[in-house]
Amino acid sequence: MWGRGALCGLVLFGAMSCRPVEIGVPTGGKAVAPASSVNRDRMTQISVINALMLGQYDGVISIEEMLDYGDFGLGTLDHLDGELIVLDGTAYRVGGDGNVVEVEPHRTTPFAVVTSLQIDDQFRCDTVASLAKLDQLLDERIGHQNDFIAIRVDGQFGTVTVRSVKRQEPPYQPLAAVARSQGVWTHEGLSGTLVGIRCPPWVHGINVPGFHWHFISDDRQVGGHVLACQIRGAQISYDVCNDWLVRLPDTQQFNALDLGLDLRAELKSVERSRTDTPHP
Amino acid sequence: MWGRGALCGLVLFGAMSCRPVEIGVPTGGKAVAPASSVNRDRMTQISVINALMLGQYDGVISIEEMLDYGDFGLGTLDHLDGELIVLDGTAYRVGGDGNVVEVEPHRTTPFAVVTSLQIDDQFRCDTVASLAKLDQLLDERIGHQNDFIAIRVDGQFGTVTVRSVKRQEPPYQPLAAVARSQGVWTHEGLSGTLVGIRCPPWVHGINVPGFHWHFISDDRQVGGHVLACQIRGAQISYDVCNDWLVRLPDTQQFNALDLGLDLRAELKSVERSRTDTPHP
Repeated sequence: MWGRGALCGLVLFGAMSCRPVEIGVPTGGKAVAPASSVNRDRMTQISVINALMLGQYDGVISIEEMLDYGDFGLGTLDHLDGELIVLDGTAYRVGGDGNVVEVEPHRTTPFAVVTSLQIDDQFRCDTVASLAKLDQLLDERIGHQNDFIAIRVDGQFGTVTVRSVKRQEPPYQPLAAVARSQGVWTHEGLSGTLVGIRCPPWVHGINVPGFHWHFISDDRQVGGHVLACQIRGAQISYDVCNDWLVRLPDTQQFNALDLGLDLRAELKSVERSRTDTPHP
Repeated sequence: MWGRGALCGLVLFGAMSCRPVEIGVPTGGKAVAPASSVNRDRMTQISVINALMLGQYDGVISIEEMLDYGDFGLGTLDHLDGELIVLDGTAYRVGGDGNVVEVEPHRTTPFAVVTSLQIDDQFRCDTVASLAKLDQLLDERIGHQNDFIAIRVDGQFGTVTVRSVKRQEPPYQPLAAVARSQGVWTHEGLSGTLVGIRCPPWVHGINVPGFHWHFISDDRQVGGHVLACQIRGAQISYDVCNDWLVRLPDTQQFNALDLGLDLRAELKSVERSRTDTPHP
């Protein structure tokens, strides 16, 4: 997998190109802010990632209330019942079987990250060979390494490899153990949207440092937590958030957790195992 | 100093007593929420502590705007021009000379932590031998180890040892270097208020884990960052905050910082050097 990813990277990186669109002109019906006045937007997260890592899968806020904090984002559902995707104000759940359903508003989430997507900049891309190349492209384009970024990638995909997790019952096992039984699917030749959140490197224990990608197809039939992808062409939009709100669960269980544990190795195994990552 | 602090702790700890006041009954004009319905309060911080540690002393928000986020808290001023205390909606500055002035609203802060103090519980204390004993008492009383707590201690003090830092000019030196030239004063037999913020242990790099205390005297003549104190009697009020908002500076300078550096040893030398801490 290393060899294949690296080869694709070498072959396709030269072909990757980005054409900026004029800022200030709405594109595809989405409002675009002038580049000179980046909105003071807010990224809101429900709970902290180490609580999820330690097996806190009971929901702490309803999906309805979560949507008050944003129309775009990702997370999971109560009982770790699949992957959550929030797009254009609608919450979708990708179940452990890979099927997509709209989430009922009374359901709850133990961990989610959302924002009201107000696009600061957008541009088009042709081919991007891998998720790692996409991350690299975005880091170079966006900068703002200490801010929180929401990224929407509407595109045509050569392949998308996604995973989803299976509903759990108490007593819950830690996420690193549960994730080993995840379902993984590779879809070829489809259009859809990557829903991405980039957090600064210094949030470890609280959120996922770097990029965190979920995907949903345009026909809302497939999706999940993205492990790999190849982009044939896409429109990329992003929103820089300078405000970061953490909503802590108001439970004794939460307060009893040792959230200071260094679970970075476990998190990497859960969140960022990518089948296409070329080593540097 | 170790011996003296430890001795005071041994002698006076037995005399430390706390008498709870009835919850739900306003005391001293301050509203008290029923214990069963802890308010969903918000702790807001301006910037992150590692930015201050690295010498980011230029203000990023006006005091006037900061006060929109809360009427109670602590921090510093632009140019690291002293210690900031926010009490009952008024911002005070303790200058490098130890003098207290009200802060003009157009001045700015590079780092501050504030909340709208809505008291969840309050109780009275008699003697408390040291700041370390106060921390211990509060940890036992409050719990909520993963929440953010604002603590107000209105009392009579046997001694209070405070420090303040001196106004800096660019190019700024790191805080650990600057703090070595701080002024330190010990005041005896006065009444005043400790303004405290307790952060969870997992915020390192972002805020100060544990307790962070500033002080201002009732006559508004002296104050500063507290290094030590002995309490003769006090009313202690606290507010549990489940929401944590981090307002990141919107500057290129901020985004260029390596905020992931482990500066815990430096922070300890700056923030938590206490002359009265008995070793365990």
